Amino acid sequence: MRLRHEFIESTSSGIQCGWPGCAKSLKGVILDLCGVLYDSGEGDGVAIPGSIEAVKKLKESDLQLRFCTNETQATREKFVAKLRRLDFDISVSEVFPPAPAAIAVLKERGLRPHLLVHDGLLPEFDGVDKTNPNCVIVGDAAEKFSYQNLNEAFRVLIGLEKPVLFSLGQGRYYKETDGLKLDVGVYMKALEYACDLKAEVIGKPSPTFFRSVLNDMGLKPHEVLMIGDDLLNDVGGAQHCGMKGVQVRTGKYRPIDERHPAVTADGTVDNLAQAVDMILSQRGH
Amino acid sequence: MRLRHEFIESTSSGIQCGWPGCAKSLKGVILDLCGVLYDSGEGDGVAIPGSIEAVKKLKESDLQLRFCTNETQATREKFVAKLRRLDFDISVSEVFPPAPAAIAVLKERGLRPHLLVHDGLLPEFDGVDKTNPNCVIVGDAAEKFSYQNLNEAFRVLIGLEKPVLFSLGQGRYYKETDGLKLDVGVYMKALEYACDLKAEVIGKPSPTFFRSVLNDMGLKPHEVLMIGDDLLNDVGGAQHCGMKGVQVRTGKYRPIDERHPAVTADGTVDNLAQAVDMILSQRGH
Repeated sequence: MRLRHEFIESTSSGIQCGWPGCAKSLKGVILDLCGVLYDSGEGDGVAIPGSIEAVKKLKESDLQLRFCTNETQATREKFVAKLRRLDFDISVSEVFPPAPAAIAVLKERGLRPHLLVHDGLLPEFDGVDKTNPNCVIVGDAAEKFSYQNLNEAFRVLIGLEKPVLFSLGQGRYYKETDGLKLDVGVYMKALEYACDLKAEVIGKPSPTFFRSVLNDMGLKPHEVLMIGDDLLNDVGGAQHCGMKGVQVRTGKYRPIDERHPAVTADGTVDNLAQAVDMILSQRGH
Repeated sequence: MRLRHEFIESTSSGIQCGWPGCAKSLKGVILDLCGVLYDSGEGDGVAIPGSIEAVKKLKESDLQLRFCTNETQATREKFVAKLRRLDFDISVSEVFPPAPAAIAVLKERGLRPHLLVHDGLLPEFDGVDKTNPNCVIVGDAAEKFSYQNLNEAFRVLIGLEKPVLFSLGQGRYYKETDGLKLDVGVYMKALEYACDLKAEVIGKPSPTFFRSVLNDMGLKPHEVLMIGDDLLNDVGGAQHCGMKGVQVRTGKYRPIDERHPAVTADGTVDNLAQAVDMILSQRGH
């Protein structure tokens, strides 16, 4: 992979469009969180070696920095508090998860949700009318994905004249310290099949979601690099919006990602620390 | 619907290919069980009014009779014992469920399964080598479809070089006395998405499965009528094999089935009793 990108760069007549040459013209970086900064698991999980320092270096640089996550197991406040306990210098306003975006969509369309989400996320929906639901929102509910709870969400949907299903992300699985775990996308597909409908995804890789982060940065897609461990949702999603996408070999990364038939990362690096060092070195730091 | 079928019949120059005219030339009938003979639920469930008598009438006729089911919550013996307690005159050799067909496939291909099935079905696999599994079989596991158990099946599949997933049926949902419940197909789709693979379905609507029943009857497809409550798996599956397919308005039937874009039943009747009376009356009984 690296050889190939170096080749592109050296033959593109000085236009540094490849990785890591593109780092010279960047104005911002968006980082995925789980699998890039830390591995989730018991308690707060564990920081990935070098990532705390890497975030610090990016913050001290002239690059804008945002965090774009499909995390839906906790409110944004509690989630950021956990990251701070792990020693990351991150504030709530820099973090973009799906739930606040979903609440904006509900208000816009006058929808009242039945929630199949993690208990930790429920307070995010405190101010939302959930009586007589006319849509279903599914998040990464983990242990709450029981047969009974999935049946309940199914019955709400099948009872609606025009069933609407929102999925907070569409990930297949993620890595916790004790192994791979099924993510929300798997249950989204289950409900799609049960009710013969197509879910609306809120979160990565939805272009609307990525654009809301770019808007907040005030930057154009080609000025921003996304770094994530998920080839399809982080890298592919960012590329689909016109950003560069680099994959780290941590988190849910698997070697076969580097031979994926549809999505090729602009670069693949061992971890966030390596990515940040390469970016900053290109920029002469 | 009925009007349309009568029209086809009256314009086909005496060839009685429509419903119920086709009943004159039938040599056999295949019945689905749950939703046609009985509704499942607490205990043994309840017989659908008129169905006990309808089965009796078919048995007294000159038609061959088989029962083709995607039931995977119990061994064939226990399942038939339940039907007999409900007063149906049915014997084990007349009933075709997916598990025995799956065991034949395992033997043929030298596969050792990890089972995500109902506890009641486990004895069916007693003689099967399950050490160091190299495939996964998913059945209608109901309450056993916990997050933990689905994760476990996922991890077996994702750890295999060539993951093989068998699904005992692909139903979306079924009706129990206390409401609609998600069926195995929903969890098949979940695992398909998680592992980016296609499951092999054993059971209805697999043509292989229907043909094994026709073989047992010694009849050709056009000589046999399938009666079920599931438009896609019973009616569509049977039609795909060259049989006629009639849907009953019991079990999981929903009015929109009669306007389905892809599958049109050869006939739609209120219940099994009505179907059998129409068949026998065509045959001059």
